[in-house]
Amino acid sequence: MGLLSEGLTQLLIPLAALVGLAFALLQWFLVSRVKVSGSYGEGNGYKDKLIGEAEEGVDSLEVTIKVAEIQNAISIGATSFLFTQYRYLSIFVGVFSAIIFLFLGSVKGFSTKSEPCTYNTGNTCKPALANALFTTIAFLLGALTSVLSGFFGMKIATYANARTTLEARRGVGKAFITAFRSGAVMGFLLAANGLLVLYITINLFKLYYGDDWEGLYESITGYGLGGSSMALFGRVGGGIYTKAADVGADLVGKVERNIPEDDPRNPAVIADNVGDNVGDIAGMGSDLFGSYAESSCAALFVASISSFGISHDYTAMSYPLIISSMGIVVCLITTLFATDLFEIKKVSEIEPSLKRQLLISTVLMTAGIAAVTFVALPSEFTLFSFGTNKAVKNWYLFFCVAIGLWAGLVIGYTTEYYTSNAYSPVQDVADSCRTGAATNVIFGLALGYKSVIIPVFAIAFAIYVSFSLAAMYGIAVAALGMLSTISTGLAIDAYGPISDNAGGIAEMAGMSHEIRERTDALDAAGNTTAAIGKGFAIGSAALVSLALFGAYVSRAGIETVDVLTPKVFIGLLVGAMLPYWFSAMTMKSVGSAALKMVEEVRRQFNTIPGLMEGTAKPDYATCVKISTDASLKEMIPPGALVMLTPLIAGTFFGVETLAGILAGSLVSGVQIAISASNTGGAWDNAKKYIEAGASEHAKSLGPKGSDPHKAAVIGDTIGDPLKDTSGPSLNILIKLMAVESLVFAPFFAAHGGVLFKWL
Amino acid sequence: MGLLSEGLTQLLIPLAALVGLAFALLQWFLVSRVKVSGSYGEGNGYKDKLIGEAEEGVDSLEVTIKVAEIQNAISIGATSFLFTQYRYLSIFVGVFSAIIFLFLGSVKGFSTKSEPCTYNTGNTCKPALANALFTTIAFLLGALTSVLSGFFGMKIATYANARTTLEARRGVGKAFITAFRSGAVMGFLLAANGLLVLYITINLFKLYYGDDWEGLYESITGYGLGGSSMALFGRVGGGIYTKAADVGADLVGKVERNIPEDDPRNPAVIADNVGDNVGDIAGMGSDLFGSYAESSCAALFVASISSFGISHDYTAMSYPLIISSMGIVVCLITTLFATDLFEIKKVSEIEPSLKRQLLISTVLMTAGIAAVTFVALPSEFTLFSFGTNKAVKNWYLFFCVAIGLWAGLVIGYTTEYYTSNAYSPVQDVADSCRTGAATNVIFGLALGYKSVIIPVFAIAFAIYVSFSLAAMYGIAVAALGMLSTISTGLAIDAYGPISDNAGGIAEMAGMSHEIRERTDALDAAGNTTAAIGKGFAIGSAALVSLALFGAYVSRAGIETVDVLTPKVFIGLLVGAMLPYWFSAMTMKSVGSAALKMVEEVRRQFNTIPGLMEGTAKPDYATCVKISTDASLKEMIPPGALVMLTPLIAGTFFGVETLAGILAGSLVSGVQIAISASNTGGAWDNAKKYIEAGASEHAKSLGPKGSDPHKAAVIGDTIGDPLKDTSGPSLNILIKLMAVESLVFAPFFAAHGGVLFKWL
Repeated sequence: MGLLSEGLTQLLIPLAALVGLAFALLQWFLVSRVKVSGSYGEGNGYKDKLIGEAEEGVDSLEVTIKVAEIQNAISIGATSFLFTQYRYLSIFVGVFSAIIFLFLGSVKGFSTKSEPCTYNTGNTCKPALANALFTTIAFLLGALTSVLSGFFGMKIATYANARTTLEARRGVGKAFITAFRSGAVMGFLLAANGLLVLYITINLFKLYYGDDWEGLYESITGYGLGGSSMALFGRVGGGIYTKAADVGADLVGKVERNIPEDDPRNPAVIADNVGDNVGDIAGMGSDLFGSYAESSCAALFVASISSFGISHDYTAMSYPLIISSMGIVVCLITTLFATDLFEIKKVSEIEPSLKRQLLISTVLMTAGIAAVTFVALPSEFTLFSFGTNKAVKNWYLFFCVAIGLWAGLVIGYTTEYYTSNAYSPVQDVADSCRTGAATNVIFGLALGYKSVIIPVFAIAFAIYVSFSLAAMYGIAVAALGMLSTISTGLAIDAYGPISDNAGGIAEMAGMSHEIRERTDALDAAGNTTAAIGKGFAIGSAALVSLALFGAYVSRAGIETVDVLTPKVFIGLLVGAMLPYWFSAMTMKSVGSAALKMVEEVRRQFNTIPGLMEGTAKPDYATCVKISTDASLKEMIPPGALVMLTPLIAGTFFGVETLAGILAGSLVSGVQIAISASNTGGAWDNAKKYIEAGASEHAKSLGPKGSDPHKAAVIGDTIGDPLKDTSGPSLNILIKLMAVESLVFAPFFAAHGGVLFKWL
Repeated sequence: MGLLSEGLTQLLIPLAALVGLAFALLQWFLVSRVKVSGSYGEGNGYKDKLIGEAEEGVDSLEVTIKVAEIQNAISIGATSFLFTQYRYLSIFVGVFSAIIFLFLGSVKGFSTKSEPCTYNTGNTCKPALANALFTTIAFLLGALTSVLSGFFGMKIATYANARTTLEARRGVGKAFITAFRSGAVMGFLLAANGLLVLYITINLFKLYYGDDWEGLYESITGYGLGGSSMALFGRVGGGIYTKAADVGADLVGKVERNIPEDDPRNPAVIADNVGDNVGDIAGMGSDLFGSYAESSCAALFVASISSFGISHDYTAMSYPLIISSMGIVVCLITTLFATDLFEIKKVSEIEPSLKRQLLISTVLMTAGIAAVTFVALPSEFTLFSFGTNKAVKNWYLFFCVAIGLWAGLVIGYTTEYYTSNAYSPVQDVADSCRTGAATNVIFGLALGYKSVIIPVFAIAFAIYVSFSLAAMYGIAVAALGMLSTISTGLAIDAYGPISDNAGGIAEMAGMSHEIRERTDALDAAGNTTAAIGKGFAIGSAALVSLALFGAYVSRAGIETVDVLTPKVFIGLLVGAMLPYWFSAMTMKSVGSAALKMVEEVRRQFNTIPGLMEGTAKPDYATCVKISTDASLKEMIPPGALVMLTPLIAGTFFGVETLAGILAGSLVSGVQIAISASNTGGAWDNAKKYIEAGASEHAKSLGPKGSDPHKAAVIGDTIGDPLKDTSGPSLNILIKLMAVESLVFAPFFAAHGGVLFKWL
């Protein structure tokens, strides 16, 4: 046994979660105090409050009222979209809960008799029917937590955007702190909430399961499935919403009408800003919550069938949760470096400050992991490894978690190198705009392809080391290591769309050019951090899926996944194809929805007199409706592809083909996800590089409206669905198929592969 | 034993090859007779001859002289490029021969003593040093045959292009027959030559090896490696050459100067037309020869360690060669359907006629396979399957070969559906040009991603069936089945670039608009057939690589390639990344070379007075030089990546990691190759669809120079490196790494994995 007693563990985990929640609330309070105290949650009264506090640089009362109006419109649009989406999703959740219950219940023919345990031999475990029921409950809780994570994130972001705009009048440093604090609210809320719900669920389930930890942690995997399936629809639906609006607005506004981005005359501008909140914020929140829940579930499941579970060592069993608890504390300290210990005074300090967050959290967390590992784990124990037990020392696990953490940093920094316009890759792409859009696209695609090399080697290295040290459990905790600083990661990430929105609001409210420049500087750094966040998301998704894959294989009773058998190989080949199929669907969805948006925006410019002159108001609502309808309709086919593939493959082709599919989609999906995100991020920043004109080289390509700039805008538009729809959704594809396979593994092992049996 | 005696087999195989050669010569004679009898090979005298025969519709003597001049320039350019390339390659071949000899010789420490056989237990086999020597010789022969295949193809194509132009004056049917016959010359020459050299090599090697068939067929694998490594440089070098010129010519000519494609005022126009011949013709020829040689080698190797080899059944052993022999006969009959039995009278008949070729050859070949299988094979035998022997009946193999053949047809027809502008996918892409280049690119990428679905399922199905029936031998002969109609496939494929060149010559020679329209119609069908050819190439490459992979695993003595071991998994992940790394290199090379070309072309337009007015001649030679230099310099890094990866992985990480890499690059490379080819083909034909304006819909998007047309041109330009450089080179990446691993397997098995051993 380790040094930490069971009682203390039971106390410290919820305590860390509550500290995280308290810190999130404190940040929220600080954001709300700085700007308009107590405005939030008091109904329509906040307009008055928002303008109640006069500050230096306030242009006019009128502007401030306009800001409040716009914020209100964005918030209402985002809330109404999410509620509509949740209505659809509730149908899915209902149907899928029934499927889970029926499939898993049928494993032992709905028998209510207890069974002998599979791994803890000699003991008696609860009936399969109970596991079916509790898995379904865990699924529902996971889905609910995921939805809440996304929803609260959106609420905070739409609350913070206008405040960031108004703070920008007091300087770039103030605006930065507001945006960053708001991101932190989301980051801590999500991490703490995820940990707390998981902790409570385990303890409640234990009331029934008692000593049957096999069944207990088998049921808990439903939590990961619930979280990730909501994330899928959130990412895909939100991604289609935001990019249909963005592409549509840009194609007519910037290219045809030559009006600036976020110009209030553009009918699609509100939809575009709503999109940032439902796609980049709510989608990203659900996604990372899903990764977090899944890696915890994968680690817990493997531990439950290893010596921790067999010997009922509660503290060691809770190691994944203890790491996450430590992560919350470390991120809390890290956040202070950005908000309190240093102050941003110049634009050029923004990006280094965000990068410093990554480094500080990684260094501190390394020490944190060491501490946690030595107090929580016994010095020696065994871990389940595909039918055999592997002897492991506690410091092995320190290396597993730490290597995941540092691999994340490598991925983050590599992503920054390939997507920030401070380095040569993006500058080369910008330079290729001289010869037009075609060379820009060719260079951009090549950049994305190239940017996968280092992350893939980093992931491969982390896998090799952690796998060698502690088998599949090593992979699972490596994933947790990468995600342990999730609060900081999300704070950095959410900061981007909030700044983007702040810029949009400044433009729409007609604020001075200077304010817009400040928000643009925040936004440019945000583009890079968004790419870094996506890098983390895909890197952790790769590790998480592999851990889930290992757990699936263990649970399905497969001993080897041999590429030399035709069943596995065709799975591998078809699995590697799935990310392409999925991307084809999502890209085409964005394209088609954007075409509709373009037609509507053109129609409004052509038929509403005075729109172009700014004397008439556009019909924002119709554009919002186009995005909403497209997103809800188009999220179904890709969602069905991901949700049905494991069910069909497992039922008809059996557990081995499904194992091949999971491995294939994992190794292929990682590449296409990273390259899509980075290509898109690079195009966006190449355009910003030309627009900013900060160097001689950049000036020679500009200014706005020049031919190279037009070529850059085309690249940016193509990159939109790549970086914000297809790319990030692929993380979820690979994770979700793996966790779904894990949950349904008992069914597939018992009744799967009917087609091959029949042949 | 089967019905066919050894003596008859010894007679029939070379006979079929000679019939193929004779038929190729006959077609050549027909092409030369129709136009300018005996002109070829008579030095500079052909100009007079070319204009000697007056025909209806001849515009003027001057035009015909101009045609001859242009043909001469293209032919000289292509020949001089290939010779320069071969000079570089000879260094590579020399160095790599030494590596092969030293690596394989060191397996048993350069001992000259005979060894006990590995599979044919109880017998004595030749020393490893002899195998090293003969593998090296086979490598040299393979390289030479590959180079000759490419070179003759180019010679024929540059001989036929002007003849097709001149024939176009007599009608589209006549021009079609000329172009198609020339393609057939190349197809039959390549298939017959490949078969004959392989047959002779085996028989010569047998003089030394005698009864040691293990060593004999182990050495023969060097033939595949030689063929494929030349193909790599041919494809990559040729691909960079042609696309640098094409992109450069289009960007300045079409986009900036608004002059038509192939306009003689464009300084890059000769380089562009040379490129078609060195890239699409010579590169494609080497590529398919490589596939053919490799699948034969893989099948022969597996057979040699199965009952055919152990019991020394020569006829059954030669089954792969007998299939290819039958293929030549079937294709000969098929060709007559296009050239003699039917006549093309209308433009709309071209594409159906080419498609009919595929169907006829497939149907006839199915009967041919049945006949060959039942006369050549004993009714029952055993095949080596990863350490065990699998009992197989002869009709199993009929199904294996046939399923490969029919899977090829499915891939061909699917490719046609996604790249021909007669169907909705390309029309949708064309329609998306209404909203500009960005939506065109988004829709085009989505189309490419979608187009992988059916081919991957077809390949997976073929793999499952042939693997289940006859293990890795089944896969190898399935690949041979797909390639058995290679003569027809190549004829259809080579027809495209010849027509493209013919159009270019017509434009440059200032021939009438009507002639250009005829060649354009031939060319549009050629775009689709080129995509079909690429579909075949990648489909067969997938099967071939899998067969080689199986042979490698057998030879390296690996029993399982278990994804659940970290060594294999990291190989899988890194392998799946390699196609991206490779594509990043090749795309960037094309982009950079195109930028240089653009600058040169702009410079000439700006500095040569009278160039735009047509009164001064451009400096074609400088553009040719830019393409040549870029291609030779830039082909080295991607070439090194492919050639060094197996060596490094095998030596340092061992046979299992290398197995993972091969599987990963295979399943990932197939997707990116198919999607890149089809995206590029679709963009090209979307542009042609708008230009042709054949329907109301197409007219609404046109005419040339309209905004949608400009957007389509951008898409077409982006597609150039995708479809003609990166995409098709990936076939070779996956095949070549597999065959190289196979050749070096004894070394890796004996001395590989030093890094893991050291750890």
